[in-house]
Parts: sequence; structure tokens; C-alpha cells
Amino acid sequence: MTTSTIQTPLPQVPTDSRSQVSQFMQQLQDSICAGLEELDGKAKFRQDEWERPEGGGGRSRVMAEGNVFEKGGVNFSEVFGSHLPPSIVKQRPDATGHDFYATGTSMVLHPRNPYVPTVHLNYRYFEAGPVWWFGGGLDLTPYYGFAEDAHHLHSTLKTACDRHNPDYYPVFKLWCDEYFYLNHRQEMRGVGGIFFDYQDGRGKLYKGDKQQAALELSDRIGEVPERSWQELFSFIQDCAGSFLPAYVPIAQKRRDTPWGDRERDFQLYRRGRYVEFNLVYDRGTIFGLQTNGRTESILMSLPPVVRWEYDYHPQPNTPEAQLYDLFLKPQDWANWVEGS
Amino acid sequence: MTTSTIQTPLPQVPTDSRSQVSQFMQQLQDSICAGLEELDGKAKFRQDEWERPEGGGGRSRVMAEGNVFEKGGVNFSEVFGSHLPPSIVKQRPDATGHDFYATGTSMVLHPRNPYVPTVHLNYRYFEAGPVWWFGGGLDLTPYYGFAEDAHHLHSTLKTACDRHNPDYYPVFKLWCDEYFYLNHRQEMRGVGGIFFDYQDGRGKLYKGDKQQAALELSDRIGEVPERSWQELFSFIQDCAGSFLPAYVPIAQKRRDTPWGDRERDFQLYRRGRYVEFNLVYDRGTIFGLQTNGRTESILMSLPPVVRWEYDYHPQPNTPEAQLYDLFLKPQDWANWVEGS
Repeated sequence: MTTSTIQTPLPQVPTDSRSQVSQFMQQLQDSICAGLEELDGKAKFRQDEWERPEGGGGRSRVMAEGNVFEKGGVNFSEVFGSHLPPSIVKQRPDATGHDFYATGTSMVLHPRNPYVPTVHLNYRYFEAGPVWWFGGGLDLTPYYGFAEDAHHLHSTLKTACDRHNPDYYPVFKLWCDEYFYLNHRQEMRGVGGIFFDYQDGRGKLYKGDKQQAALELSDRIGEVPERSWQELFSFIQDCAGSFLPAYVPIAQKRRDTPWGDRERDFQLYRRGRYVEFNLVYDRGTIFGLQTNGRTESILMSLPPVVRWEYDYHPQPNTPEAQLYDLFLKPQDWANWVEGS
Repeated sequence: MTTSTIQTPLPQVPTDSRSQVSQFMQQLQDSICAGLEELDGKAKFRQDEWERPEGGGGRSRVMAEGNVFEKGGVNFSEVFGSHLPPSIVKQRPDATGHDFYATGTSMVLHPRNPYVPTVHLNYRYFEAGPVWWFGGGLDLTPYYGFAEDAHHLHSTLKTACDRHNPDYYPVFKLWCDEYFYLNHRQEMRGVGGIFFDYQDGRGKLYKGDKQQAALELSDRIGEVPERSWQELFSFIQDCAGSFLPAYVPIAQKRRDTPWGDRERDFQLYRRGRYVEFNLVYDRGTIFGLQTNGRTESILMSLPPVVRWEYDYHPQPNTPEAQLYDLFLKPQDWANWVEGS
């Protein structure tokens, strides 16, 4: 567990910080939904607006039974209340006893074709008394792995990160590998992407849970200069904006690959890992359930159909085995070279 | 949270307590598996023995693709180690700093016919330094509700409980309603049964988390006399022995009821609640994952095929709606009278 007390005040927040971020998060939802409808060519998003009794609310958008997507959800929410749940206060002790504000957009897509990977995005912003921070990320979960797809996603994200700070991508890539990890399976959720939390402008990028990751990073990456609220907001906008260019070409390339029962069975089985991660580990899910969020919106991330099979192991030397052996282990995808 | 410190020593434990309970738990697994194979008439249990690196192990038995059961698992385990996980020590502070021993048998059955209910059983025994306790229970999760089935199950359990103490059934029935509850859905998991934990012979039966339940109980049920280790062990044996008579007649009555896509869809959808409960709330699952148990054995409770559907609501005045309106709310099933 990482706890820290603020010695010096955080970089200043503009007076209209909440409306700036909230507007951006809604635009992000709009642009993602438009891009996905265009990609799918059939399914349209249905919108449900909801209010949270304790304060705030959101708009959930779900599509189902599309050409590409069996189910997809893109959720915007903006909530406030008198206190953050214990799981967050433990990480941000300075938030204790303060009102909080939180807004964000999150998305999970479950394609029908097993060759098209599942993908998740979430960007979020918090204010609570003297503290504020941005968090979020994007990660890709293939059922059948393609190195060129993993490379395309990672290099697109790296380009967005590098525009702001060369340390961002290596730190947030490692943090993603660490976070989207199923400890009880000793498996990564997929090929990763980027993930970060608690970005409040102070100079230490990594604030994750694992000592090992921190040690690795301290050898490689020093402290970065303090960053203004505007600079971090601009970074978040850039990351979020890189989702469609990172994902759409992969989906287009794989959407027409023929598949049968074998691929479908494996996809449904692997979707079980997605459920296990989201219900056992995912910080956003736990935050939503603990703050009395709208359950249907929180759990729209769960796949439409899932299989569990006792003690399944892929046959050696199959594409299914290759997923475990190569793609569910940390790899330097951004620097992968075709033919290597 | 309930915490308590032991003022006086607990009732004495026989020198061979561990082997007595462990033998019983293995016999329980044997007798349940034999009864279920007879009921199913087709599928046989496959056994996997496993060892836990930190100490102990178990034998897992799984059947699949039977006449009655799409998937069923019955797991025996006996583990020991240097310290209990935090989630348990929080409830039993006197166990702090002590070695522990834990043994138990657990079972979850997922029938294929949507008219046959899913059922779960778990009985367990712990020793850690100065403390020991029994826990466990049995609960029924129908997809289509039948009052006579709920009555049969509850009255069979009540008969077993009443042989030992008239306060057991009402307290442990309420505890079951409280424990198998999905807070984020505001729904019970099913029609309940009995559940209890931390039974160490001291006179206060209820040691659950909810203040409201404790208040309700204190009006109705006083303290019971201290119970010996043998008396509690005998009670556990009686409860566990009542599983087959409680469940088999229900399965036999419903196994040939015709069903189609509608019933199957609803069954797969409702199985999602089972997954949500087991991964978000279930104490046995969390204990297993936290103590580095065998993941495949812990998660064999998960259904073979599951569906999630965004914002599903049953049509009013259907059997599906009746499940929510009548069967997923606490009812006095033991005293239900036919035609009432």
C-alpha cells in the first residue's frame, strides 16, 4: 500500500476544473460512440440517463448484437458526495473528511469474432478537499494474439504519451502490466496498454502497489518536474483521443477472419477471466459498487456470454497455447519489429 | 464488524479433533458424491488430488454433462499454515499470531434443467491457537420457484437443527438470508436455507455482521447454554447429513419438466448472479484465493455457461417475475402450508 501526506500544496486547480473535465468526458463518450457505430455499421447505442440518490448521475450507452460487437458499453458519470469510500481514502489519506467529486468515462467492448480483441478504456478525475488527481488507461485483451496488433496499439499509445513526457509510456505501460493481472491465475489480462492513477502534478509518476515495480522503475526513471493541472488534463485528452486510432484498425483487420466452434469456445472461456478480473480486482467496479452507483451501468462491462470449464489447459503448439505463452506475459510491444 | 475477545477459555477440544473432523469431511464428500451419481444416472465424478505449497491439500471432484447436472463440484480440503488471512483475523482477533488448521467440504451443483435449482453446501472447521469454531450451511437457488420445494428444504433442515436446539433453525435461517444477499442488486441469492459461522460453544449463536439482524434476534432468542465441542460436531454432522434428503427429492420431482429457450435464457441470466455473489461476497472463495488455495478447485463453483444482459427486467405476471417478487425475498418457508 502506498500512502503519502502532502507536504506542499498541489499545483493549482482552475476555478472551472470540474466543468472542464466533465465536458471533456462527455465529448469523449460522444466521439467514441460515433466512431464505434461507424465501425460496427449496424448496431446503435441506446442511452439511459440515471441519477445517484447521494448526488450526481450519468449517462450509460450500450449497444448489442452488432456486426462487430456482441455487446459494448460506454458510460459517462459525474458523482459527488460527503466522503470517498475506504478503498480510495486508504490511498489518498489527505482526502479524509472531505467532500468529493468524481467524473469519468469508461468503456468495454466485447466483439463477436474471436479474432477481434476485447478492449477497455477508462479515464477519470477526482477532487476531494486539498487533493485532486487524474487516472485511467486503456488495455487490450485478445483471444488470439497478433504481435502486429499489440505493436500497433502500444506504439499509438506511446506516441501520445511521448508528446508530453518520455517517462510516461514506460512507467504507465509497466503499471498497466501490473494492474491488469489476475493474481489467482498468475496471468495478465491481455497484452496491456497504459494505466495510471493518482496523477496530481507531483514529480513521482509511479504510485502503484508493488514494491518490485517501484524498484525496477527507480533504476530506470527519475523524478519528473512538477506538472500543472492544465498539462495533466491535456495529457489525459491526448491519451483518450488515441483510443480510436489505436483500436479501430485492429478491429477492421480482424473482423472478417473466419471462425468456428473452436474459436468461439475459447473466446467464451477466456471471457471468464474478464469477469474474474472485473469482480475480484477492478478498482472502478469496486468504487462503483461501494458508492452505490448504478449497478447495471457498472456491470455493463461483463461479457454477454461466458463459459467456465474445470481445469482447462490449451493443447501445446496451438494458437490457444501461444496466447498464454507469449501474449499474456509482459512484452516490449512498442519496440516489436515485424519478422523478429 | 463483530469482534470479540475471549474472557474465559472455550470448551475443551479432544486431542484428536483434527482427524475426527477431517475424516468426517471426507466421508461427507464420499456420501454426497455417491448420492449424486445415483441421482444423475450418467455422469461420474473425476477426482484430482492436490497439495498446497504452504501446507495441506485436498481432493476435488467434478462431474459434467450428466443427465441432471451440467456441472457439479464437491471439494474436500485440509490446510494449515502460520497465520490466517486478515479477513478472518478481523473477525477472530484471538487467532492473531497463531498457526491455523482448517478443513471442510464444499459443493455447488449446476443442473441443466432450469426447473431444478442450483444448490450449495459448505461445512468447515477451524483451529487457531486458543480458538476453534465450526461454520457452514446450505442454500438453494431456484430459477423457477416452487413453494413446496422451498418448504421441503427448509423443513428438512429445521428438523435436523431442532434435534439439537430449538434456537438453531430460526437464527441460522435468518443468518442465511442475511449472508447470501447481493447488496449491489438488493436481492437474495435464492430461497436460503441455513448458514452460520464462528460456532465455538459459547452461548451467543449469532455472530454475523448486521446490527439489524442482531436486534431482531435479541428480541426473539436469548442466549443458549454453552455447548461442548462434541455437541457442535454432532450438530454439524446432522446438518450435513440432511443435504441429500433435502435436495434429492426436489431434483427428482423437477428433472423431467419440459423446458425451452425461454427457460434456458433465464437460467443462464440468473447464473450471472451466482458468479457475482461468489466473486464479490463469498467468504469461502475469498479465503481460498487469499490463502493461495488451488484456483481451479475454488472456482469450480462457477457455472458452466452464463449470460449477462444489460438492464434486464422480467415481464410482470410471469414465472420469472414471481421469482423476484416472492422467492428472492425472505419467507417463512418452514411453516408454509400447501394451498396457503
